[in-house]
Amino acid sequence: MMKGVAREVERWGVFEWSCHGPEEGNPFVDQWVRAEFEGAGERVAVEGFYDGSGVYRVRFMPSFEGTYRYRVSASFDVDEPEGAFTALPATRGNHGPVRVRDTWHFAYEDGAPYISLGTTCYAWAMQGDAQIDATLEALAESPFNKLRFCVFPKHYAYNLDEPQTYPFEGTPMDSSVLNEENFWDYGPDSAGNAWDFERFNPAHFRRLERCIEGLRERGVEADLILFHPYDRWGFSRMTKEADARYVRYAAARFSAYRNVWWSLANEYDILKKSPRDWEDIAAVLVEADPYRHLRSIHNCLHLYDFSRPWVTHCSIQRTHLYLSAELTDAWRERWRKPVVIDEMAYEGDIPYGWGSLTGEEMTRRFWETALRGGYPGHGETYLHPSGKLWWSHGGQLRGESPARIAFLAKMLAEVPGGMLKPYEGRDWDEVCAVPAARGHEGDMRLYYYSFMRPAYRDFNVPGRWHATVIDTWNMTTTDAGVVEGRFRVALGARPWMAVRLVREEP
Amino acid sequence: MMKGVAREVERWGVFEWSCHGPEEGNPFVDQWVRAEFEGAGERVAVEGFYDGSGVYRVRFMPSFEGTYRYRVSASFDVDEPEGAFTALPATRGNHGPVRVRDTWHFAYEDGAPYISLGTTCYAWAMQGDAQIDATLEALAESPFNKLRFCVFPKHYAYNLDEPQTYPFEGTPMDSSVLNEENFWDYGPDSAGNAWDFERFNPAHFRRLERCIEGLRERGVEADLILFHPYDRWGFSRMTKEADARYVRYAAARFSAYRNVWWSLANEYDILKKSPRDWEDIAAVLVEADPYRHLRSIHNCLHLYDFSRPWVTHCSIQRTHLYLSAELTDAWRERWRKPVVIDEMAYEGDIPYGWGSLTGEEMTRRFWETALRGGYPGHGETYLHPSGKLWWSHGGQLRGESPARIAFLAKMLAEVPGGMLKPYEGRDWDEVCAVPAARGHEGDMRLYYYSFMRPAYRDFNVPGRWHATVIDTWNMTTTDAGVVEGRFRVALGARPWMAVRLVREEP
Repeated sequence: MMKGVAREVERWGVFEWSCHGPEEGNPFVDQWVRAEFEGAGERVAVEGFYDGSGVYRVRFMPSFEGTYRYRVSASFDVDEPEGAFTALPATRGNHGPVRVRDTWHFAYEDGAPYISLGTTCYAWAMQGDAQIDATLEALAESPFNKLRFCVFPKHYAYNLDEPQTYPFEGTPMDSSVLNEENFWDYGPDSAGNAWDFERFNPAHFRRLERCIEGLRERGVEADLILFHPYDRWGFSRMTKEADARYVRYAAARFSAYRNVWWSLANEYDILKKSPRDWEDIAAVLVEADPYRHLRSIHNCLHLYDFSRPWVTHCSIQRTHLYLSAELTDAWRERWRKPVVIDEMAYEGDIPYGWGSLTGEEMTRRFWETALRGGYPGHGETYLHPSGKLWWSHGGQLRGESPARIAFLAKMLAEVPGGMLKPYEGRDWDEVCAVPAARGHEGDMRLYYYSFMRPAYRDFNVPGRWHATVIDTWNMTTTDAGVVEGRFRVALGARPWMAVRLVREEP
Repeated sequence: MMKGVAREVERWGVFEWSCHGPEEGNPFVDQWVRAEFEGAGERVAVEGFYDGSGVYRVRFMPSFEGTYRYRVSASFDVDEPEGAFTALPATRGNHGPVRVRDTWHFAYEDGAPYISLGTTCYAWAMQGDAQIDATLEALAESPFNKLRFCVFPKHYAYNLDEPQTYPFEGTPMDSSVLNEENFWDYGPDSAGNAWDFERFNPAHFRRLERCIEGLRERGVEADLILFHPYDRWGFSRMTKEADARYVRYAAARFSAYRNVWWSLANEYDILKKSPRDWEDIAAVLVEADPYRHLRSIHNCLHLYDFSRPWVTHCSIQRTHLYLSAELTDAWRERWRKPVVIDEMAYEGDIPYGWGSLTGEEMTRRFWETALRGGYPGHGETYLHPSGKLWWSHGGQLRGESPARIAFLAKMLAEVPGGMLKPYEGRDWDEVCAVPAARGHEGDMRLYYYSFMRPAYRDFNVPGRWHATVIDTWNMTTTDAGVVEGRFRVALGARPWMAVRLVREEP
């Protein structure tokens, strides 16, 4: 009863094996299926999953080219449990999963640079197909190469609708008594509506897979948030066992997608889970994801202990109304892992300090983060007659910062070696970055003057340089010629200016 | 040989007694003159001073109305050492010296509110008369009611000229070898040019008195900086004895002016003096000023220990590129004295982080400081073809913030009781002040949204209020009507907005 299986898949693509099996009882907990894959470069054991309607699947991401052989085992009889496929060379745009590189940075597994410029659409995967497609289109036109979003539906200001699908079988509890004030306290439903946390809803996960695939096709990493507190359904209040079962199911379904990142939680410290609970969830995830996708956990008030070995990078929400990007250096030094400031407040006009930045301030925070050797994250919270806010629903980008972030991305793409680190000799009143890639440190300097608006700056930089004046807001570059030693660069008394020095060959 | 002495002076005016005395030797150190004044309310001993050309003077500020009798004594024979005068009621605009009030605030001695909004013209008193007059005119048109400036001439970027007068007799050392790089290291002059630190130049001090008087006539406090490090003449490197002699001389000349404040230093921690030196200078000043004028000391990198008993208020230079005004609350709690942020960077376009704020940012820092219960200070550093920068030379104000600061002053003048304190129940993403005056706390709330630009804010404030929307940049107020309990105020999705709630009588 085995179904058709592709005999060829590209390296870092998804090989999928499937079969029909038992439908009786509760296959999600009564049955299991797993497989071992072996090629010249690796031998990997993966868990499969039940996809409903009697269909069982096993997914696998080959990290090498060449022939792979596999052997499936299951709690039920499987026809043709063995087979083989060929992993072909990766096609254009496929560089493999993103990995940590040189302590503070990222790169794709094939070595291509990955300069993370993220954005956030928490609940886009819960919207209708048209909205999902619109979001994918907007992302394709945008500079963003990472999207944070939730696996579970979201209940929060400006997003009180029911999702298109739920992650579990069951019926949603009565939400008519809910409002923005009491939803944190909402208890079980008096009519007995409830979820069966032992039965996943495959349609929900297929919806997420469609999103992950859409992102993958557009070169966007999918930063999947496994748990979050914005919940009226009870998905944030499951038992430890249900949490673990869910994490294993998500890993079995999603981890073969090369563009998946794991965010254990959004605002972990608002959820009613203990530090031990989080560590246990992390342990489940580490075991369930054989590909070691990037893993982190995002805070509300207190940063998680990013020194934990399972944490690959810092995923930070600013904890100060005024400072965010400016703390990148300190966080780099403290954690010695890549610093991703996933939420440094959003461009928009909603009545919250985290969602009412001007485009200028959002852009400033991007430049500050990037030039301090970190990786900034965007979000957009403009009120709109449609009721759709990018940060929650995806859809259209309406703000002023995305175009400037695209301009920043262009500037960053011109950094030798791709990565930046803070220049240690910088003055107190400037931001200054140099290339972080070994051997390239002396090739470029990138100065940024943030909110300051000097008419000029004086430099004393040994060597011969080609200088460019960059207006980060008006997105212009002005050739300032070849400079040497002591020189002055006019900056027009405008804020948001930068100066790039590129070393001239002698 | 006694000269004419006024027999009437207003309360908190300057009574001056003078006589001719010895000119031979060095009267500055060989002779002394002092007097005791006695009226119904006080008995005060004051030191006089030698004013050159054989003239000795004693100055006294009566703090009460009525008849005062005095008795002069001196190191030489004095004709008519005794006399009397009448202290008349203070005339309009004369409220006496400024004193600390209610721990964190100021008031004039007659009880009138003093809401400090300062500015800075370090070297204006060293300029020609026309420039001094222009500065006084500009101040009269401005919202500023305190001016910080130096007694000694200043050598610093954009101000490398010789001053009109020097504080001591002598000849300036050759400065032709100086430039902006080496002036900190400049040693004694090889040609032997030097100052006689035992002989003051009375013309220099008369120049300062003209400035102090001009400020007094315009209701502006004179925040006199006694020492500062921006020096190529050696005035920052005198002996302890010379320092003490200078402080006593300055106190004898200036302390009878009601509008004098003492700033022991600008950037004390850049001067080559020890903590012990500063405490010794403070002790000299405390003894030499019988009127207890306000006293503080201003930092570069490290705040002084403002808990010292002689310190009446905090005089702060921001020590962080990004945070300044935002730390007002913390400084209030730490020191429990008035927080004056004399330098929170300046509006301008010079190539330094402390001198290249936009008008918007300078204005924002003023609102943040004021609504956190502190007192902000302004400065202006626009490059100008004249070579004159307000922060150094005085002259014309060219920036965008002074008009906005005048608007702030108007708003502050409408606060019941005048003073503000942080509202403890405020949200994390708003600044909110209430009146600090006892019995008025519940009369008003003043919310400020700083760099944020919400379309609206929702309130839940018990009671009935009259709401006004304030655009702090465009300087408009919009009546938002009477509100009660839970209500929404539209803010137009613009930054720099404030909301004022004034309690309605039931």
